[in-house]
Amino acid sequence: MAARILSGRPVVESLHARIQQVLARRAPHQGPPTLTVLLPNDPSAQAYARAIRKQFTTLRLDYCTVDIDDTLDESRFAILLKRLAEDESVTGILALQPLPKGVSRRSLARLMPPTKDVDGVSFEQQGRLAIGSPWIAPSTPLGGLILLQHYGIEVAGRHAVVIGRSPVVGRPLALLLLARDATVTICHRRTPDLAKLTRQADLLFVAAGQPHLVKPDMVAPGAVVIDFGVSVRDGRLIGDVDPAVAEVASALAPVPGGTGPVTTAVLALNLLRLAGLLEENDLFPGAP
Amino acid sequence: MAARILSGRPVVESLHARIQQVLARRAPHQGPPTLTVLLPNDPSAQAYARAIRKQFTTLRLDYCTVDIDDTLDESRFAILLKRLAEDESVTGILALQPLPKGVSRRSLARLMPPTKDVDGVSFEQQGRLAIGSPWIAPSTPLGGLILLQHYGIEVAGRHAVVIGRSPVVGRPLALLLLARDATVTICHRRTPDLAKLTRQADLLFVAAGQPHLVKPDMVAPGAVVIDFGVSVRDGRLIGDVDPAVAEVASALAPVPGGTGPVTTAVLALNLLRLAGLLEENDLFPGAP
Repeated sequence: MAARILSGRPVVESLHARIQQVLARRAPHQGPPTLTVLLPNDPSAQAYARAIRKQFTTLRLDYCTVDIDDTLDESRFAILLKRLAEDESVTGILALQPLPKGVSRRSLARLMPPTKDVDGVSFEQQGRLAIGSPWIAPSTPLGGLILLQHYGIEVAGRHAVVIGRSPVVGRPLALLLLARDATVTICHRRTPDLAKLTRQADLLFVAAGQPHLVKPDMVAPGAVVIDFGVSVRDGRLIGDVDPAVAEVASALAPVPGGTGPVTTAVLALNLLRLAGLLEENDLFPGAP
Repeated sequence: MAARILSGRPVVESLHARIQQVLARRAPHQGPPTLTVLLPNDPSAQAYARAIRKQFTTLRLDYCTVDIDDTLDESRFAILLKRLAEDESVTGILALQPLPKGVSRRSLARLMPPTKDVDGVSFEQQGRLAIGSPWIAPSTPLGGLILLQHYGIEVAGRHAVVIGRSPVVGRPLALLLLARDATVTICHRRTPDLAKLTRQADLLFVAAGQPHLVKPDMVAPGAVVIDFGVSVRDGRLIGDVDPAVAEVASALAPVPGGTGPVTTAVLALNLLRLAGLLEENDLFPGAP
């Protein structure tokens, strides 16, 4: 059996059509929502920023960048975010990794204004997730769920196994899955017998950052596998899931081509939500 | 085999000794930390408030109450919390359930000042948990982990199964367990085959609110079982774990007598942390 490939491209197309509809509906005097990207001097961050800019230009969403580097200590970072919080022309703020050396993820969570937090990194947005009332969820895990929804794959009542517990993918994904009525197991590098757990998954989400960690014998026949891994080997992007898993799984969102492209489109959707152009439960029906 | 009974009483005694040491160390001009309890007109809330008052009086911690009822709408609730936030004589605030009809858990999370949030209900404290950097964690789940620590039961690297996903116990417990390097499965009423999962638990945490839900055949021989259930039947407190589970488990924190008494002592500990009298990693070694 060869798995159905869950490509991100049609999901992005459908999200873009949706975004264009919403933008067309807005009042004539309303300008486009604007995203401000805090951009470190780092090749992957800059590649990601170019991808965002390209997509935002297509969608006629405004986009600008503010360069950040290690000379920015926590107090100057706080001043920058305060200024952006007060600037009415700024709808959303995205701080790309790596953060300046003097700024921890915890500081970012504390300083990011929740009402402009396009990627759900602030304590308030993370706290909403934690109590089961997500508003703006981190784009990568939310993109994964939107991808499943697009392909009609049910989450409620199923056993989802998540590998990885980063604050960017694994943890928020687990909380989103819980809010969608999945039974959730979270594994990580301290899990002694990973395969025993992954073989029980109806839905297996992999965000470990370990190239080809998941082999066919770790997957139950017929399971749905979603890969969030992004490693670079010999200049090529490779995921956490061995391509041979496609022989066992019923469906696979691969790297590259699966969840990756959806992430950027979700940033645009989150931006519309921050702008008040999308209803809270519009995007993600069933979320509380 | 009869399970070792994990009684809460010695845990409370050891926490009280610890609290008294800390209070004795403080500067002579410092008054005792003060807890303000928002107290609804409800018998269980009032019984809980009496238990807190009794413990706090023993510890010479200050305690006062503010009556709340359904006439308190969200805007008046917001004013009350703002006043308490600004009142320098208030160290910590605890809002007992049920909240006034016009105040949702989400509003409480938004309005509770994080630096006086003794039970970790605010978005900021929940967000800290969600990103894996807990500071003030909800007292009930934190009490469960402190109980295990007291009895030398290891959490890291073990498979913890949590039944229940409430924002008060199940969810924060799962996040705390994850921060302590457990592999975590969260089950709930939408989980199709509960017993299949619970039988895999090294550590089984039960917070479903269903009297005697967990039967001996749902528990692996030698597992550790921690009951958080609180139901009242014929005027007696009963838990979510059938007492016959003690024949299978290696250790059991029962209801009554297990985690319950620890919860109130953890409120006192959290109050000391809010007062700056306990170091962040002092209470819960290993937490990030």
